[in-house]
Amino acid sequence: MTITADPATLTASSAADAIVAGALTAEALTRACLDRIAARDADVAAWAFLDPDLALAQARAADRVPPRGPLHGVPVALKDIIETFDMPTQCNSPIHAGRRTYADSAVAALIRAAGGTILGKSVTTEFANRHPGPTRNPLDPTRTPGGSSSGSAAAVADFQVPLALGTQTSGSMIRPAAFCGLWGYKPSFGEVSRVGVFQQSGTLDTVGLCARALEDVQRLRAVLTRIPYENVAPLDRAPRLALCRTPEWDEATPAAQQVLEEAARRCEAAGATITDLLLPSPIFDGWLKVHKRVANFEGARNFGFERHGHRHLISKALGEGRIRDGETTPVSAYVDAQRRAEAMRLWAEDTLPAFDAVLTLAAAGEAPVGLSGTGSATFNSLWTLLYTPCLTMPFGRGPAGMPLGLQLVSPRHEDERLFATAGWVAAALAD
Amino acid sequence: MTITADPATLTASSAADAIVAGALTAEALTRACLDRIAARDADVAAWAFLDPDLALAQARAADRVPPRGPLHGVPVALKDIIETFDMPTQCNSPIHAGRRTYADSAVAALIRAAGGTILGKSVTTEFANRHPGPTRNPLDPTRTPGGSSSGSAAAVADFQVPLALGTQTSGSMIRPAAFCGLWGYKPSFGEVSRVGVFQQSGTLDTVGLCARALEDVQRLRAVLTRIPYENVAPLDRAPRLALCRTPEWDEATPAAQQVLEEAARRCEAAGATITDLLLPSPIFDGWLKVHKRVANFEGARNFGFERHGHRHLISKALGEGRIRDGETTPVSAYVDAQRRAEAMRLWAEDTLPAFDAVLTLAAAGEAPVGLSGTGSATFNSLWTLLYTPCLTMPFGRGPAGMPLGLQLVSPRHEDERLFATAGWVAAALAD
Repeated sequence: MTITADPATLTASSAADAIVAGALTAEALTRACLDRIAARDADVAAWAFLDPDLALAQARAADRVPPRGPLHGVPVALKDIIETFDMPTQCNSPIHAGRRTYADSAVAALIRAAGGTILGKSVTTEFANRHPGPTRNPLDPTRTPGGSSSGSAAAVADFQVPLALGTQTSGSMIRPAAFCGLWGYKPSFGEVSRVGVFQQSGTLDTVGLCARALEDVQRLRAVLTRIPYENVAPLDRAPRLALCRTPEWDEATPAAQQVLEEAARRCEAAGATITDLLLPSPIFDGWLKVHKRVANFEGARNFGFERHGHRHLISKALGEGRIRDGETTPVSAYVDAQRRAEAMRLWAEDTLPAFDAVLTLAAAGEAPVGLSGTGSATFNSLWTLLYTPCLTMPFGRGPAGMPLGLQLVSPRHEDERLFATAGWVAAALAD
Repeated sequence: MTITADPATLTASSAADAIVAGALTAEALTRACLDRIAARDADVAAWAFLDPDLALAQARAADRVPPRGPLHGVPVALKDIIETFDMPTQCNSPIHAGRRTYADSAVAALIRAAGGTILGKSVTTEFANRHPGPTRNPLDPTRTPGGSSSGSAAAVADFQVPLALGTQTSGSMIRPAAFCGLWGYKPSFGEVSRVGVFQQSGTLDTVGLCARALEDVQRLRAVLTRIPYENVAPLDRAPRLALCRTPEWDEATPAAQQVLEEAARRCEAAGATITDLLLPSPIFDGWLKVHKRVANFEGARNFGFERHGHRHLISKALGEGRIRDGETTPVSAYVDAQRRAEAMRLWAEDTLPAFDAVLTLAAAGEAPVGLSGTGSATFNSLWTLLYTPCLTMPFGRGPAGMPLGLQLVSPRHEDERLFATAGWVAAALAD
């Protein structure tokens, strides 16, 4: 094996294989990433914390020992709400400026145990909420990269790092991945530890990731769940797919709508069965409000330290939005929302296993122009609420030439079936 | 209002009322607690961290401002896995020795926002697991106070502090409260924020509390859930009670069995309807193993930092117990256990609302002699798994004269009904 490409352009899996084969060192890979960052950071601004010496020290340490796991020598970016013992975790808030934590988050420890290194902390919106950071979409710096995992998606898309962790409470991983033309993944709720990850909603928060290849998604998922890594092959039969336009279909751009329909047509032409999936009334009536109730009620309490000690340093969007709303939500309204969400999950458990995956929108359209917002989570929050694994793959373009995403959703805890189906769909769409 | 008793012996509610009435200062109350600790600490060893100057400074600050909430000037102990910005949180592990955290846990922030003060950190077993700390039962120093919230229960029972927070993943709040003759409370899962609380199992961990009066339980619960405080009156009608001996009945001591039967008889004599509640097969077959599967699988991942960075400093009980077991549990077995647990919860949601509360054992018997263990969680874990609110009240004695607890359990999110029923039961048993 000989590496001729710029190592920064390799997928995580190619890089890991090259390191094991002795064709690449972790140090060379890390240097290539750092070079790319040095060249591009002024335009993209994906990093909240980056210490090149610390990154290189980790890489050299990896080079001195035999491969420890499927990410040996591969650098990973961590959204800046995910703690590491050796870097600050600042949550893009002046309240947490300079905050150092004692321990690694569980996911950081698992990445290191698999031989991976932590390149740095990628920009988050304020507390993974709505108030944006400085990050620009690397494909068009006038546009948002999406959020709240803004820096994670931008850095991976810009070849500054092959893998990044993010989190999703509404649409914070899938949406930025789609806006940046990446594979994005939100695991089944509950399978990845959240220890050491800033919490907004215990009911909804999920650690996710983005990558430039499906194989990379699977590799990092194995590390995070602490299961042996084995790449799941594409389905060897045509899948049963559900096409779900969702009740919010009219909020999507015509281009996004057309691309989803086109994907369904091409999968059908390749042999898939396509069934329209409707979200039935009354179960799903007002589902967006249900999501918001749960997130806001819990958020208002989870932000106890910030709210009661440092309210003047909380953005208006967060303080007068989520926190105030959650503080004025009675427990009974919260409990009612939780019961409604549970009914939706039971429906999903009954209905979704008939399909290998649901095909749906990853976002309302291409990344919007402007950096004052990060786009809408309307096409993501439902699946977060349902606890289902979600994957977005790049497919199609919007009118400005920006990438669109195709979101696949499988039944909860069927993440491997999701990967197998996504492999089949990606092949069908590539033909 | 004039206070003639030692302020340390007051309930939290009496003390708070006295402070509001100007009959007591927060400083005098805190000094009384510190005096009691100074006199008793060598025998009880309930504290992992206590800085009298810091406690007094908080009290004096409370005395300088008008009452801020229902706990104004009242000191609270925090189990030493619950973070505060001004004290170490050491989890009774050498790995976290001296660990200081940047922020308050949400519950600490909410207590402070309600005018309460943090007296200090109470001893936990190692990471709220099984390896015990030095704390002794204040009612008999040859006996365990129970665990894992050992110091919280011992300190409150010994009049060292009127209120304490603990946590429960199996039986870590209800059992020590029962062993120490206290009121202990595990809220409905999901209602109290866990931000800044060391996590073993996201599915099971619940912040709870112990106190010397039912009114105190309600007062602190209102603060933790951030709802206006209003003491719930006892039910004004005789309750419908379910008597649940559980399939593990034979593991209880004869005294514990007799006391539960006696409680049921006396409630019935006072007018309650008593229905035997059986946990049906196959739903509840092997429920203890289901609980263990979930806790161990998640724990093995949540302990990522400790496991991968500091394994030699983890106790054998934890390292070769929960962590090793969880690491060798396949995802499929975990998912299966989660599905089984969900089926049990659905049964509980269908069945329990027919009753105001379930009457059941709080522990297998009185606090065992010896400090090498903290007793069995067999009579607690099921209700933790079911997400139901649980309350133990002191009732009866074992053969050695140690207190026993009567556990009441209501449907999830019916915590106020639980309090109302407990008020009725306490009155019926006092007659």
